[in-house]
Amino acid sequence: MDAQSACMNNLSNTPIADAFSAGLPLPSTLDPRFEEALRHVLDHPGSLIRPRMILLVASAYGLDAGAARDLAIALEYFHTASLIFDDLPCMDNAMERRGVACVHFEFGEAEAILTALALINRAYALIWRAVSSASRDSQRHAMAYIEQLLGVNGLLNGQSLDLHYATLPHTRETTETIARGKTVSLIRLTLVLPAMLGGASERELQLLERIALYWGFAYQMVDDLKDLLDSQAKSGKTVARDLLLDRPNSASALGIPAAVQRLTRFIELGDRSLANLLQLRIGFSFLGKLRSSLEEELARVTDNLCEMPAGVRP
Amino acid sequence: MDAQSACMNNLSNTPIADAFSAGLPLPSTLDPRFEEALRHVLDHPGSLIRPRMILLVASAYGLDAGAARDLAIALEYFHTASLIFDDLPCMDNAMERRGVACVHFEFGEAEAILTALALINRAYALIWRAVSSASRDSQRHAMAYIEQLLGVNGLLNGQSLDLHYATLPHTRETTETIARGKTVSLIRLTLVLPAMLGGASERELQLLERIALYWGFAYQMVDDLKDLLDSQAKSGKTVARDLLLDRPNSASALGIPAAVQRLTRFIELGDRSLANLLQLRIGFSFLGKLRSSLEEELARVTDNLCEMPAGVRP
Repeated sequence: MDAQSACMNNLSNTPIADAFSAGLPLPSTLDPRFEEALRHVLDHPGSLIRPRMILLVASAYGLDAGAARDLAIALEYFHTASLIFDDLPCMDNAMERRGVACVHFEFGEAEAILTALALINRAYALIWRAVSSASRDSQRHAMAYIEQLLGVNGLLNGQSLDLHYATLPHTRETTETIARGKTVSLIRLTLVLPAMLGGASERELQLLERIALYWGFAYQMVDDLKDLLDSQAKSGKTVARDLLLDRPNSASALGIPAAVQRLTRFIELGDRSLANLLQLRIGFSFLGKLRSSLEEELARVTDNLCEMPAGVRP
Repeated sequence: MDAQSACMNNLSNTPIADAFSAGLPLPSTLDPRFEEALRHVLDHPGSLIRPRMILLVASAYGLDAGAARDLAIALEYFHTASLIFDDLPCMDNAMERRGVACVHFEFGEAEAILTALALINRAYALIWRAVSSASRDSQRHAMAYIEQLLGVNGLLNGQSLDLHYATLPHTRETTETIARGKTVSLIRLTLVLPAMLGGASERELQLLERIALYWGFAYQMVDDLKDLLDSQAKSGKTVARDLLLDRPNSASALGIPAAVQRLTRFIELGDRSLANLLQLRIGFSFLGKLRSSLEEELARVTDNLCEMPAGVRP
């Protein structure tokens, strides 16, 4: 989801990065090796696009600043933990993350797992603090929503399907089910949860849900198209990394022209929901920026397609 | 902690085992492989000693039955998840758990990790439901307590120290710090959390904390002594599994006579707190049974010592 980051560069990262680093207090009795692993993660935040979005949505709904920050850091901790697990040898076997060595690569798998669990434990505590002054009804909705999107109905199921993609039918339905679990779940939490706690109307929540879904699919499609096109540009034939590794890629499942068409459609559908949302509530102009970044990505993809030698163009 | 199980056999396990199996509803859209791994875990509960204790403490404080059950299953899910992680090749590399193959052995490490995370996600949701009707103050205390005992101040730090035991001074302090994190944390949650939510007085909570601490140390000492004595009985020399693997073992750190003495002391200290607690509140006679099981274990250990040939007796 690098594409999302580009458009948000004008917002300063420093206060959020500081909150990310300081959001998990480390006791003096901590095992020094565990402390090193945790500091390695806490001192290397990613693009922080999700917490920044959360703060903007929270501010549009007048959510208390402390609760908004707790929510923002909690979601980023969940996201970071999911990356630490994803990077393990038994999953994606990655070596580098956020510009530095993966935590398992530097500190061992066991320490990486404990580090991810520490982030998750702290994330639940921060979420709890963020909702603690909300009404009982809001609390109940928020906690059920989090359980649904992070658990067996959401992120974890997406991750499991992703791991078993080789055994599943390589169709659009499969790749979109996986994207719905892996990519859309965290975008839904990012856009909808702060609005939910800020007292958004049912209609507003519904529109934010749709925007999260369409944009989640769109960003996933951009990534999949880039993967496919980059590989083609480099190797001069239609063999993409995702394809080689038998990872889900909606652009391979659909074919490039249909994938570009579908991406365009997602952007259009997102636009409709965004237009309806902007009629209901001001303070959402920042969503327009994210939307523009999607269109820029689409333009980049189609430019790439045109620049390819005719022989390798799909 | 097998010792704990023995004394509780007269309590039927069936309703708790059913609640354990049914406590994590699996959606029809779940990845079939993920579902198999989850069913493997949910259909093979352990001794269920912790959830049974929670129900008894909750009942002594008149806690709502639904909240008590949610709490009991949540704690057992946390415990089960911690065992799934512990058993991974990068930690204890175990092959069997609860009479069946470890989940990573049967379904792969990635699926084992997702299964443990699903249990954790559900556990937080159940905890949340259990505290949702408590006063705001009780909620805040309970959530902070859970964060403290499961996170970098508790279970996770104990596990990290345990993994790095080879690099630490092999002293009583080290083994007790590890036991405090790994063993005592979950016993504290088991005895104190339901009492906290049931409105126990500060004094009662303090006594339950002490009982959890002394008994936690005592059970750990029993396990460590058994490990040391079993190995001696089998191999005829002073080489225990823990020692061979360089795992923390307080009986090796202290020597067997001092370890037996210290175990006796923990039981005495626990007795004092228990006697004080029984003066304050009725309905805690079940704790007497747990206490007796500790004494039986101590007797078994000293019997074993006496039966050993003089040559190998420590």
